[in-house]
Amino acid sequence: MSFTKPVNRIAIVGTGVIGASWAALYLARGLDVVATDPAPNAEENLREYVDSAWPALEQLGLSAGATKERLSFTAKLNEALQGVDLVQENGPEKPDFKIKLFSDMDALTPATTILASSSSGIPIGVSQSQCKHPERCVIGHPFNPPHLVPLVEIVGGEKTSAETIERSMAFYASIGKRPIHVKKEVVGHVANRLQAALYREVVYLIDQDVLSVSDADAAVSWGPGLRWGLMGPNLLFHLAGGRGGIHHFMEHLSGPMSTWWKDLGNPEFTPELKRRSPRAFWRKPATSRSTTSPKSATGSCSDCSP
Amino acid sequence: MSFTKPVNRIAIVGTGVIGASWAALYLARGLDVVATDPAPNAEENLREYVDSAWPALEQLGLSAGATKERLSFTAKLNEALQGVDLVQENGPEKPDFKIKLFSDMDALTPATTILASSSSGIPIGVSQSQCKHPERCVIGHPFNPPHLVPLVEIVGGEKTSAETIERSMAFYASIGKRPIHVKKEVVGHVANRLQAALYREVVYLIDQDVLSVSDADAAVSWGPGLRWGLMGPNLLFHLAGGRGGIHHFMEHLSGPMSTWWKDLGNPEFTPELKRRSPRAFWRKPATSRSTTSPKSATGSCSDCSP
Repeated sequence: MSFTKPVNRIAIVGTGVIGASWAALYLARGLDVVATDPAPNAEENLREYVDSAWPALEQLGLSAGATKERLSFTAKLNEALQGVDLVQENGPEKPDFKIKLFSDMDALTPATTILASSSSGIPIGVSQSQCKHPERCVIGHPFNPPHLVPLVEIVGGEKTSAETIERSMAFYASIGKRPIHVKKEVVGHVANRLQAALYREVVYLIDQDVLSVSDADAAVSWGPGLRWGLMGPNLLFHLAGGRGGIHHFMEHLSGPMSTWWKDLGNPEFTPELKRRSPRAFWRKPATSRSTTSPKSATGSCSDCSP
Repeated sequence: MSFTKPVNRIAIVGTGVIGASWAALYLARGLDVVATDPAPNAEENLREYVDSAWPALEQLGLSAGATKERLSFTAKLNEALQGVDLVQENGPEKPDFKIKLFSDMDALTPATTILASSSSGIPIGVSQSQCKHPERCVIGHPFNPPHLVPLVEIVGGEKTSAETIERSMAFYASIGKRPIHVKKEVVGHVANRLQAALYREVVYLIDQDVLSVSDADAAVSWGPGLRWGLMGPNLLFHLAGGRGGIHHFMEHLSGPMSTWWKDLGNPEFTPELKRRSPRAFWRKPATSRSTTSPKSATGSCSDCSP
């Protein structure tokens, strides 16, 4: 297996919204894409998705040779995998299904083909377990939608080779993604855990009636969120530390932060909370009920509408 | 006290970086600002700060009549408070100091003047405790720097009137800030708690060697952070729920999120972690040491540098 083997032709296995978004991105980067999915209207839905995504991708800039013409479709897995350098797998999130699928893909491709799974929930160690060449299996988990958000989480299983990690990182970086190496398999990979950590406190503060839903959102998007789209928290605290940088932060600000950590909430999505969520929890407080939009009568969340 | 009394003249009490940034913002919004601080070089430092902030404020657009000429300075508190409609207080974060300061400001201003504290740590219930008119005391806590980030957290104490909350919210909104009403006093107000919640998991994942520091930052700024600067998590999950909105989220995605919640880390800034932080924890892993910049030899954090 050569590290320098370039990726020119990609198979998209499973063309739901994640697979379709990957397909659009790869086409926009000038790659050949062959897609496969057993569902009846799969090709039609895929081409519709790519059409809808294309104007944004054009605006962001197409790579040389990029065209929707380079998308082909076949319902047959063995046809789809012929001559591809990388498979982006987006099948159902069921362990048995993934194990069988990866075993099939393993048998149908040379050992140099990277088998990348978009899975958010099935560890690659499980999916690769029946492969003869498990070393080329890897998680390449996008942040939705893949054709717009750069983050890709790269996770290897026990049998994944260091070379596959390196090749995957290099490939995703080469098409403008920002791959990160998740060095240990943890539940939810990383970005979903970070979202969950933030949302846990949001839910707690709403549940405790500290904040309305809209003020909770504003607390993010008009405050720290404005920074988080530019840089991550370590760099932000390094800057916040002034000339002393992260040293200063650790010396002087870790104390207050520890105090906040101790006081953060630990709510649960109890049946009660979930039951009241759409109609009571995630809506404006009763005192402003007169101002809710007609939408709330249909069961939509007036407080959350765009 | 009339709700419609406009705010035209503001006193900045305490002209450290937070007070100076508030001063620059109020000047840019066309208000009269009188600042006071007992420190020897306070006026000079304040005017330097305002000068340095001004180009950005010009670029963002000055309000009618906005000019740095409308900034005056006096070392005397009683002079500073004459005829002001609102005081933005930014004194030292010490309870006894705040109680005395608020008591003095209370005695020096009519009851219609709003006394707004930038405090992140001292509850307004403490600061207002010796005031004769505690009902006009309120927390107006900015997110740093106040002249650029719109979020302001409004918190009342037990003795704060509903009218003061309403007047403060209306005033901050009128100058382009995004005030939120923190309805109960909680440690750290809200935005700092949300930052702490996110950072707790970031620290955990770095400490567990799941991620490098730079990949942890990328996981935020190239992924969910790109959304959080546009909208908050409730609205994002409402959109992620598709046609079913937040209902769909609660039905189908609260399960996985609960799983992640259970698995999130609970690290502590132990003396050991703080000690190794600058030189070992917040730097690139040893294997890539050869690529670190010369800065790392001086004790700066090569992984966190801008």
